Formats: sequence, structure tokens, C-alpha cells
Amino acid sequence: MSILVVGSVALDTVETPFAKREGVLGGAASHFATAASLYDQVNLIGIVGSDFPQEYLDFWRNHNVDLAGLQVQEGKTFHWHGRYHMDMNSRDTLDTQLGVFGDFHPTMPAEYAQSSLVFLANIQPELQLEVLQQVSKTNLTVLDTMELWINTARSQLVEVMKQVDVLLMSEEEVRQFTGQASILVAVRQLFELGLKYVVVKLGSYGALLFGADGTYFSAPSYPLEEVFDPTGAGDSFAGGFLGYLSTVQPDATGRFSRMDLQRAVVHGNIVGSFACTEFGIGGIRELTMADIRQRYQELVSYSHFDPEWKPIA
Amino acid sequence: MSILVVGSVALDTVETPFAKREGVLGGAASHFATAASLYDQVNLIGIVGSDFPQEYLDFWRNHNVDLAGLQVQEGKTFHWHGRYHMDMNSRDTLDTQLGVFGDFHPTMPAEYAQSSLVFLANIQPELQLEVLQQVSKTNLTVLDTMELWINTARSQLVEVMKQVDVLLMSEEEVRQFTGQASILVAVRQLFELGLKYVVVKLGSYGALLFGADGTYFSAPSYPLEEVFDPTGAGDSFAGGFLGYLSTVQPDATGRFSRMDLQRAVVHGNIVGSFACTEFGIGGIRELTMADIRQRYQELVSYSHFDPEWKPIA
Repeated sequence: MSILVVGSVALDTVETPFAKREGVLGGAASHFATAASLYDQVNLIGIVGSDFPQEYLDFWRNHNVDLAGLQVQEGKTFHWHGRYHMDMNSRDTLDTQLGVFGDFHPTMPAEYAQSSLVFLANIQPELQLEVLQQVSKTNLTVLDTMELWINTARSQLVEVMKQVDVLLMSEEEVRQFTGQASILVAVRQLFELGLKYVVVKLGSYGALLFGADGTYFSAPSYPLEEVFDPTGAGDSFAGGFLGYLSTVQPDATGRFSRMDLQRAVVHGNIVGSFACTEFGIGGIRELTMADIRQRYQELVSYSHFDPEWKPIA
Repeated sequence: MSILVVGSVALDTVETPFAKREGVLGGAASHFATAASLYDQVNLIGIVGSDFPQEYLDFWRNHNVDLAGLQVQEGKTFHWHGRYHMDMNSRDTLDTQLGVFGDFHPTMPAEYAQSSLVFLANIQPELQLEVLQQVSKTNLTVLDTMELWINTARSQLVEVMKQVDVLLMSEEEVRQFTGQASILVAVRQLFELGLKYVVVKLGSYGALLFGADGTYFSAPSYPLEEVFDPTGAGDSFAGGFLGYLSTVQPDATGRFSRMDLQRAVVHGNIVGSFACTEFGIGGIRELTMADIRQRYQELVSYSHFDPEWKPIA
């Protein structure tokens, strides 16, 4: 199997209360591709400028990321400059320079159309639609988005939601999109769009998996001593989630088993936890399956309790 | 075994974005005693005024709550008036009338001194110390507190912390008390006071159990469609937590098994979830062990995933 991703590739300036770094490899597709390529081949659709460091292209080529869909154009790579608050959850965008990303339209190498899993990372919904129109026979389409598109491109975003299988959203985005305080009520509303699964990302509290078939799973987060830079944690979560699913077989109707979906969310949380430990892709670029396995086993011991009810004496 | 609690008993006015109710049975000891008495006899130390409805006293007497330590004095019962914000997490205190609670000092019926578990519910730390001085041979002392005492009575609060086994605190209170953003770092700091366990309450995200021996357990919350009134959810959590522990035997050194502590936190989350569904004790006054068992089994199915690592193909 192989995993297609379309999304931003960026060179960021990131400030936290503790450190600042310029020229950090960023963008949703960068984090996702680096994470998911641990599991399977990733086909990356995006655009970079002529200033984009060769070192990152070499790194990806050596790590199971196919770059035939990554356009390189004369000009500047997309640039984001953000500053995190003391709580490391909220952040301000200080500057955004679209550069070559401003005129970007995804072009699909013919062989990508057969990718079994498709991740529409956080970019303009109309670009996500362009990709959906070019893929066929995929097992699973997964959508991520952000507050900006909920506010400025809602109708196109709804159109994308109607065409995908899985939606990844933070708790705040779910509330913002639906106007519902209750996550359970909000998710029911999202299922009316035809989605099969909704994954609600809770940041340091883990993630919830909801299925249109009534599936509900609450996945614990991996406890971190310190969060160094949370940028890309959500995209790395998606990388672990789709990465794991790319290694298992859905049934004849394209459905994954409940157990595999649960494992996928746990993989997502684990890869996301590694992503927070350094700037850019620093927390996941050296990651191995042995590292993921160790945290998986720790999470079992941290979160499982006696499955048998013990009668009260 | 029996469980001793000291804390406030109140008649509240509660406003949520959806409803308002006056004369609601409130106070930490009320919620705790109602919850814990599902498991074992509760010995209640507190004070009410001559306006306190006989119906609640009758209810408790019929439900395994011993009231020999509940003083009834001429005057008004403690009164709190609060209003919840739209998120149902934060709230404003609009009015507090101490009434007979203003001159309260706990008096301990002789037989209470042998209570095997002691819960110091949220009241002035100096009153909690008065109770600690009167109990003996208890298996476990558990402390709850609130932002007010962290801000206004820190040194007495630290004194109580040094003398108890278990501390229950919300995540915000832990950060506020320690000045640490990282919960893991903050909890290590709390253990320097000599505590054996710290339970960090995460509200709708569940709870974390930390042990000075390195124990770590993340307990899922029970998913609620709507939170009607969260007042007393933390005290009901404590009631489920201590209630469960009162039914099991610690080892010769007074330590509970890891499995029993985990079950206790899960019971706490479940009882706390019921408490949110109505005003006052309405959500737990009819509760049965069969109801708790059902949510326990649901939580297993909602949160447990394959404990075996599945190798990546």
C-alpha cells in the first residue's frame, strides 16, 4: 500500500517561551510525510521554492517519501512565523508569507492515483477537492483542516467533508464548526455529512475515535515531561494513524476492524508525542518502530485497568 | 470499615446557562457522603443551621450516613451562590454566606476516631488539621482543597499536605500551587511533601493517578451527552474513590494494590459522571452499584485496546 498526502511544506520561524528558531522545516505535509514514512511509502504532493534546502529533499528520498509530486518553483517557500503562549497550547501567528504556495495547484503523477490511503492535510479546501477529483479506488480518505478554513471557506470545506471517510479535528474546531458545546452532540451532527469516522484530537489529553456505526474509543495520551514545540503534533498524529492503517488490510467493503482503528489512534498519539519534543521534524526524524513499540507498551500499562468488574463486598 | 468525612454542608443557589435552582443541597461533605455511602458507612462531621431541611437528614440516615458528628445550630446553613459559564467548566461565585459555618469547629464522636479512611473535604486547612489531630490508626487520609486556600492559607495547607497520604487536586490547582506548567514536574514537587499518592482531576478528560513509588495511571472519563450541573462532581469523584477503597483490604503496611487504586480512580470517574447530570445530589441519590457496574464495563470497552504490540508488516 502507499499513502498520498497533499499539504503545505514550509520554512517556519517558531518561538516558544523557552527558545526561538528560524528556517525550521514546517508545513502539515512535511510532518505527516516524515511520520507516515516510518510505516509505508508516502507520495507527497506540494510545492516548495528555490530556497528550499536540498538536505530535506535528500532526507525524504532516503526515507520512503516519493517526491515526484513535489513541485519546485522559482521563488520563496511558504513561510509561517508563530509564537506559543506559556501554556504551549495556544499560539499567535505573527506572519505568513505564501510565496510559491500562492499559485499552487496540485498535480498528480499518474501512479499516485492508485494510492490506497489519502490524507488531505490542512490546506485550502478547494485544493483538497482538486486532489479528491484525481484519486480513485482509495481505501480511505482522511481530512484535516483548521480554524481559518472553518471561518473563511466553510461551504467548500463542507463539500470536502461530504466526500471523505475520516475527519480529524481538534476539540475546539469541532465546537467551532458545529456551534455545539457537547462533543457527543457535535459529532452526531458531523456524521450527518456522511463521514464514517471522526477523530477528535484532545492535545495533551489524547484523542477520541467516533464511528458512524456507534464506535467510541478514548485513547490515552503519552505523558510528556515537557512540551518543547507542539507545531506539527497533529500532522504527526495523522502520520501515525494513517501509517498504521496502511499496514493492515480492510475488509471487502473497505472497513477496518475496530481493533485496527484503535491501534491506529494509539499509534497517532505516540508519534504525536515524539513530535512535541523538538523543533520541526526533529522529534520524529530519527524515530524507529522500536521507539513506538516501547511507548505502546507503556501506554497499555498506564491506561489499562482490571477489565472484570470486582463485586463490592 | 467506615469512612470519615469533614467538610461543608450547604444550601446553594446554582445557575447554569440553561437553568437556575435555589435551596439546592450542596457542600463538599454532602456530595461526598451521598456518593461514598453507596459503598460503606460514612461518618459525617460538619454543621448545619436550623433552616436545614429534615428531609436530607432522613435521607442520609436511611442511606448509611451516620450523623452523630453533624452539629445542628440555631442560625443559617452555609450558602453558596454560583453561576456557570457557557463551557460549564468555569464559574463565578456571586455570593457566599457562612452562617453557622463561620464559628465551626469539628467535634469528633469517640467512635469516629477509628474510621479506617478519612476524607478531608474542601474546607479551611486549619479545620482539616483539627480533624487529623483527633483520628488514629486510619488506613488512609485523603485531602481535597481549592484555589481559595492555596491563595489565602498556603502555609496551613502545606502543613495538612505533609500529614496526609493522598492529595486530590484539579490540574489547574496543581499548576497554581506549584507554579509548574508540566504536570509531571509539578507532581514530583508535591511528592517532596511526603504524599504517597496524588490524583490529578482533569474534569471531562478523566483523572491521573501518580504514586510516590512511580505508579502512573491515566483513567478515562465517562462520556456525557450533556453536563447539567458540575457542582460536586469532584466530591462525588472522591466518594467513589474512597468508597471503593473502603471495600478492599490494604496490605500489612497499609498500602493498597495498584489494581485496587486503579479501580478506585475508575469508580471515582464514574460516580463523578453521574453527579453532573442533575442539580445538587440529584444525579447520585438514586444511584445503585448496578449503575456503576454498567458504566465500568462500558469504560473498559471504550478505553482498552489490544495490549499486545502488533508488529508492523
